[in-house]
Amino acid sequence: MTRYKAIISYDGSGFYGYQVQPNTRTVQAEIEKALTKMHKGKTVRITASGRTDTGVHAKGQVIHFDSELDITAEKFQKALQVMTPFDISFLTVEEVPDDFHARFGTVGKEYRYVVKRTKIFDPFSRNFALHYPYELDISKMKLASKRLIGEHDFTSFCSARTERDSKVRTLYSIDFYEEDDETLVIAFQGNGFLYNMVRILTGTLLDAGQGRISPDDISEALLARDRQKLISKTAPPQGLYLWRVDYE
Amino acid sequence: MTRYKAIISYDGSGFYGYQVQPNTRTVQAEIEKALTKMHKGKTVRITASGRTDTGVHAKGQVIHFDSELDITAEKFQKALQVMTPFDISFLTVEEVPDDFHARFGTVGKEYRYVVKRTKIFDPFSRNFALHYPYELDISKMKLASKRLIGEHDFTSFCSARTERDSKVRTLYSIDFYEEDDETLVIAFQGNGFLYNMVRILTGTLLDAGQGRISPDDISEALLARDRQKLISKTAPPQGLYLWRVDYE
Repeated sequence: MTRYKAIISYDGSGFYGYQVQPNTRTVQAEIEKALTKMHKGKTVRITASGRTDTGVHAKGQVIHFDSELDITAEKFQKALQVMTPFDISFLTVEEVPDDFHARFGTVGKEYRYVVKRTKIFDPFSRNFALHYPYELDISKMKLASKRLIGEHDFTSFCSARTERDSKVRTLYSIDFYEEDDETLVIAFQGNGFLYNMVRILTGTLLDAGQGRISPDDISEALLARDRQKLISKTAPPQGLYLWRVDYE
Repeated sequence: MTRYKAIISYDGSGFYGYQVQPNTRTVQAEIEKALTKMHKGKTVRITASGRTDTGVHAKGQVIHFDSELDITAEKFQKALQVMTPFDISFLTVEEVPDDFHARFGTVGKEYRYVVKRTKIFDPFSRNFALHYPYELDISKMKLASKRLIGEHDFTSFCSARTERDSKVRTLYSIDFYEEDDETLVIAFQGNGFLYNMVRILTGTLLDAGQGRISPDDISEALLARDRQKLISKTAPPQGLYLWRVDYE
């Protein structure tokens, strides 16, 4: 038996999220179907660094799986690339030690959120960015972001449905890339992210950029540990990309 | 009655082309449905600069229509933007003289073809570019393109199904934009294009970039006036964009 690590990319628009659910098309289900076919019907399960929601994309999701087929990682990459649908790509496949774990081994992740600032809605971005035709003061967003960086209890910045005991996470950095006049990308790096956390952080930063909330409001919301204390909405899924997962 | 000109953009992936056909989703049908609703059920027809095929996109398609509603062009733009689906956008609407004609008034068009040169298939580009992971010598493509520029009979470079008497067209320019290491955009400007012409020109230039055909082969194919004399395939629709339509 050999353990394989794969870095995969997927367009989330056509999936009901990453995780297997009955009677829906999910990333996990499509990959397990391909692997199971390669193993002549013997069920193969995969483990990811974490789930992504319906409509959320991945540029560098990481999964692992075990196989008794005696084939090289390169052949696995080619076979999986061919056997999975066009909205999933296997960027790399490599053999890893048996104790590698795609979920428990993560030491950091990067998510990116893409904001399209065209006045008129761009049909080509509808599944790949948030359309935000409003004024944004990016210097205000940067000031606000400084209150979020570091180790905090992010209870106010995650969905009430988050199933984790500790809501303490460390945000290493929040970077703002103005790719062109119309495209703002916000990159979040941290040691881990709670359910809906990046989308709530994005909603918060957009409100800050509009002057609707101040840096002090953000510090207060962190201390309050209550999602209700934060007025900002959860940004929609289509702008969100799981960009990179780091291991030791 | 007032005539309106609109510049529209659409993501062709979800349409069976531009033109109305029974029982299929087309760009024309969606826009006429919205306009007819705005005119309380009275059928309104639109005229475009030309058709686009299934899967082909538009960044600057032009249409015209007539209306007896006494509303400003700006209000038409906003109403149509709201009443048409998310994969169509109304970039501008303006009042024009009654003799403006979106099809017969064109003096030039620009099409662009997007080639994605990543080694591994990019799921985000699958509907928006041709994946071409092979070697390409762009200087050879440029040399080949010089044989195509100018006034020629393009019989060898259009579909046998082209319903035009004269196959003589003038190509003003073919430009190559290397947007990044992975993305090549080929821009074609001319006074008019025949059915499948840009896709066949693109297939030809890619063959030239691979060294499979020479500039002389292209000149010979032009003189032969026979699509069978040209070995190059028609490039697939998803990389093609109707970029701009010019009027006097």
